[in-house]
Amino acid sequence: MTTPTSSSTATHDVETLIAERIPGYSLAAPFYLSKDAFDLDIAAVFATHWIFVATIAEIPEPGDFVTVEIGSYSIIVVNDDDGVRALHNVCRHRGARVLLDPRGSVGNLVCGYHQWTYATDGALLHAPDQPPGFDSNCFGLKRINVRTVDGLIFVCLADEPPTDFDDVATRIAPYFTAHQLHRMKVAAQEDIIEEGNWKLVMENNRECYHCEGNHPELTQTFFPTYGYAPDQIPARLRNAHARFLAAEAELDKACTQRDMPFAAIEELSNRPSGFRIQREALDGAGESYTRDGSAACRRLVGELDNPRMGRLTLHMQPNTWMHFLSDHAITFAALPIAPDRTLVRTTWLVHEEAAEGIDYDLAKLTDVWQHTNAQDSALVARAHTGITSPAYTPGPYAPNEYQVNDFVTWYVSRLDAYLRR
Amino acid sequence: MTTPTSSSTATHDVETLIAERIPGYSLAAPFYLSKDAFDLDIAAVFATHWIFVATIAEIPEPGDFVTVEIGSYSIIVVNDDDGVRALHNVCRHRGARVLLDPRGSVGNLVCGYHQWTYATDGALLHAPDQPPGFDSNCFGLKRINVRTVDGLIFVCLADEPPTDFDDVATRIAPYFTAHQLHRMKVAAQEDIIEEGNWKLVMENNRECYHCEGNHPELTQTFFPTYGYAPDQIPARLRNAHARFLAAEAELDKACTQRDMPFAAIEELSNRPSGFRIQREALDGAGESYTRDGSAACRRLVGELDNPRMGRLTLHMQPNTWMHFLSDHAITFAALPIAPDRTLVRTTWLVHEEAAEGIDYDLAKLTDVWQHTNAQDSALVARAHTGITSPAYTPGPYAPNEYQVNDFVTWYVSRLDAYLRR
Amino acid sequence: MTTPTSSSTATHDVETLIAERIPGYSLAAPFYLSKDAFDLDIAAVFATHWIFVATIAEIPEPGDFVTVEIGSYSIIVVNDDDGVRALHNVCRHRGARVLLDPRGSVGNLVCGYHQWTYATDGALLHAPDQPPGFDSNCFGLKRINVRTVDGLIFVCLADEPPTDFDDVATRIAPYFTAHQLHRMKVAAQEDIIEEGNWKLVMENNRECYHCEGNHPELTQTFFPTYGYAPDQIPARLRNAHARFLAAEAELDKACTQRDMPFAAIEELSNRPSGFRIQREALDGAGESYTRDGSAACRRLVGELDNPRMGRLTLHMQPNTWMHFLSDHAITFAALPIAPDRTLVRTTWLVHEEAAEGIDYDLAKLTDVWQHTNAQDSALVARAHTGITSPAYTPGPYAPNEYQVNDFVTWYVSRLDAYLRR
Repeated sequence: MTTPTSSSTATHDVETLIAERIPGYSLAAPFYLSKDAFDLDIAAVFATHWIFVATIAEIPEPGDFVTVEIGSYSIIVVNDDDGVRALHNVCRHRGARVLLDPRGSVGNLVCGYHQWTYATDGALLHAPDQPPGFDSNCFGLKRINVRTVDGLIFVCLADEPPTDFDDVATRIAPYFTAHQLHRMKVAAQEDIIEEGNWKLVMENNRECYHCEGNHPELTQTFFPTYGYAPDQIPARLRNAHARFLAAEAELDKACTQRDMPFAAIEELSNRPSGFRIQREALDGAGESYTRDGSAACRRLVGELDNPRMGRLTLHMQPNTWMHFLSDHAITFAALPIAPDRTLVRTTWLVHEEAAEGIDYDLAKLTDVWQHTNAQDSALVARAHTGITSPAYTPGPYAPNEYQVNDFVTWYVSRLDAYLRR
Repeated sequence: MTTPTSSSTATHDVETLIAERIPGYSLAAPFYLSKDAFDLDIAAVFATHWIFVATIAEIPEPGDFVTVEIGSYSIIVVNDDDGVRALHNVCRHRGARVLLDPRGSVGNLVCGYHQWTYATDGALLHAPDQPPGFDSNCFGLKRINVRTVDGLIFVCLADEPPTDFDDVATRIAPYFTAHQLHRMKVAAQEDIIEEGNWKLVMENNRECYHCEGNHPELTQTFFPTYGYAPDQIPARLRNAHARFLAAEAELDKACTQRDMPFAAIEELSNRPSGFRIQREALDGAGESYTRDGSAACRRLVGELDNPRMGRLTLHMQPNTWMHFLSDHAITFAALPIAPDRTLVRTTWLVHEEAAEGIDYDLAKLTDVWQHTNAQDSALVARAHTGITSPAYTPGPYAPNEYQVNDFVTWYVSRLDAYLRR
Repeated sequence: MTTPTSSSTATHDVETLIAERIPGYSLAAPFYLSKDAFDLDIAAVFATHWIFVATIAEIPEPGDFVTVEIGSYSIIVVNDDDGVRALHNVCRHRGARVLLDPRGSVGNLVCGYHQWTYATDGALLHAPDQPPGFDSNCFGLKRINVRTVDGLIFVCLADEPPTDFDDVATRIAPYFTAHQLHRMKVAAQEDIIEEGNWKLVMENNRECYHCEGNHPELTQTFFPTYGYAPDQIPARLRNAHARFLAAEAELDKACTQRDMPFAAIEELSNRPSGFRIQREALDGAGESYTRDGSAACRRLVGELDNPRMGRLTLHMQPNTWMHFLSDHAITFAALPIAPDRTLVRTTWLVHEEAAEGIDYDLAKLTDVWQHTNAQDSALVARAHTGITSPAYTPGPYAPNEYQVNDFVTWYVSRLDAYLRR
């Protein structure tokens, strides 16, 4: 039954919707809701750009692997003798999923269906009972572009990844080399399936306009002035802003003494590999994301000698944000599952020699962001559900939501580039 | 993959299906099953006509609200100082759902995401941290047409509601003013999600052909001769019909003495605001919907002085039926969720001064219709499931199902009007 | 929103996909995943061919019925006085499902909605309260072609079933008449909903390439050399092959002595009613599917005098495989529910006079195939999930999977025939 209904989105095409977008406003509903838009997002965004999927701490030894799903892609990220490899988790025989576990350690990659056996570089080592003339070279696991930046692992499903990532890697690495991610271990990992479109997950993360009303634990240390221009601080936040300025002055000094970069680089919307990095002060004791701001782990990371190093925060389009603190690091990956469902994977990392129960208490380490994640998850669901109403129309971002607007602008420009390719 | 399959409904369009409808027969399967038809129903029926959503007893005080979902619309119905208001439950900032609770009481309407704050008339009172030039007048909650008829609340999502509703309101109100709905309170409310298309819910309700075989509790008082022409009473129902005629004679006399209208008005299919109203006798003690027909509440409603006033039954297209009895009232709202799911909300109302446990026993009050609703829910699921078979073809309504046919005729004419608008 | 996405399957049509199929390779992903392909499969395969649905042992007495679902069709298979009948389970009044139970026994078929009453041959016996002129003859339950082959019940939803089934029936019946299926009873039945496309269920069943790695219980008796050409037995299976040859020699002799056919007939892909039948030896004690190969039931079926009769295995396109053993029989029906869900119904049958607890232990009887079914179900899910990845490309069947290729070749040819009809 084909009918002209006013609520149908099928009569719009994406080019029209892109053309109609009002700068500074949220997107039209189909971008958040429709299966077509979701499929386009996977193709134009997630299968075209560099996507953060894991840290080296998750696969420290040769043979260690994680499997990651991006839309309906399943990807094996494995520590190969020659470095990190990314492979499609699809047997070349009849398409069975090769590895079923989310993580583990293997010698070779063996498909459990008919025992086709691949090396960790994807090469087909053995396929039982094949006829003469069968060419194993034609049936290796398909490889995916992968690269690491000081222990952060990114994959790109496209044959020709964005070339500007080299520049980004060069510029961000100096900010966190002192944290020595490759010498950290995973203390905890939490997967939340949020009931909202992945872009609403990212939009929610790109502003702290919602923090005062929703994140009582986080705002003990995260300054709620985030995103405000200095001359637009509202009266109710002036005390907080004064504390922020004092803490920033101290942090700048500590960084300068140690020759650690801290100034913001913000190129969120004007390049394929949009990003933002900055080291910023924390409130309270200024050391970590805890209720009072004191460190959650006694063993500092890397060679750091001072716990009051604030938060080094990295945001990369389209799917990650992360915080490097003196005592731990937290990475976040948003991985789309369906138009209305997104996996948010949070990983807490500490020094590889830190001992649980001695150097850190796991509950204290994860406390603030477990609460914050749960609160954010509810907000994302609230936003998504609201947008399902046909009465929704795009609304204006506030000035302190400029990074949300940057994300949306980046997103629209990437769709546009994809459609014109 | 686009293929010519015989079971596909996508090759039909609704105009063809309307043209092919056989009068007196049930609808073609796509009307009940397809997502396209569902979307059309929301647009052409539920977003175009007056829809019964609640009674004033649910929101007696200023600030009291209920939220109601019609398809993917979410609607706030709130008691404003100036009367009842209906607002789209979609924040004008980034589209979040403003109110998450199904009912409650508020001062202002505050979106929990970024604390945008609206008055109960929808006006935006406060949006934090906006730049100079931000015009609050442009960002109030979108208003929805709403009207009450002696305590029954109807909304219309269209900008231009059907104008014939004034006439309907004028003609039905005299039938139930004596019951003083505005002086009732909610004794109980039950939500059932029925596993069937909303039209099957309505069709099921529009006939009592199924009552003898399915509703042992209801037919203690509801005459199973409902819908039969007087000259077509089957032999097995002649005793029941004799009791009905005697009870009707008594009821007519009681109504006439009290100057209360009772005669049927039946304009089900020939107008946008199709309706039917009639006061009819009940079997047994003739007072209420209980196992023996005696009143379930000692405190009669309004100024009624006689418990034997039968049932005043109102049906309104597209989504409601209700019964006013001497001791209580029951309203029903059918609200479509998906092609195969419909919320049926049943509300039992008693005099605002009736005391539970003293004047009425809640279990006795709700007994008959809780059973009847559960039985009807199973029948609707049975009908829906059956129609999913490609072997289904429309079948003939029996003469005592003429109101089902009227409903379907109304439905088809409203689709037709919508498509030609 | 209509967009050109690379992962979309909507831009392919099935003719193109058929034309692009590489012989010897698995199918393109849309055949396994898309709703359009599923609908086409129901129409072109399941509503066009003879489908195995039950055995006479499930409905031994007049009035006994089972209801079976094929896609969204619901079918009543009932033992009528004149034989087995198949009827659409859809009331001709308003389409309600007539019988809700999966099995039972009835006098007439009564729809519980409005008590329309049908004979077991489908004739409408009574529809209450119809007007003069209502013609019951026009409203019988719609009949479905049905036929039995020595107790196996097949239905065909098409008006004109494939005519080559007569030939198949004539040729397969002599293989299993000695087992006297019509004198068996149901000992156990198990329904599994497998999380995969029905074709993956069939493909999985058509090879034993996966047996060594997955079926430790089954391979106690099922020779893992199944499907290998005699000159291609791999070294690791040579001992098994030697046992197989010895067991086959003995079996051939036993069959010849009893004038029982045993040679393979294999016409899997070149006719509408594709099939394969052969009596083959079992490993171990050679009597039945148990851990050691000894009989699970002391009472042999039919007039068999020797427990070492191996397995008579019948495979019929599109949806069944079954094994006749000296002590019991096992039938399997694969019934598609959705693109990614298939009901697999397994039925264990023993001599009607065999007594549970005396002649057979139910746990021992069902042990091997309950384990095997659970293992196969996991494999089907693994295959289906893997194919959902956009990285999937069809892969090559091994030589010992030639029957899988035959199934796929049959399938593609049947789609082709349907589309050209």
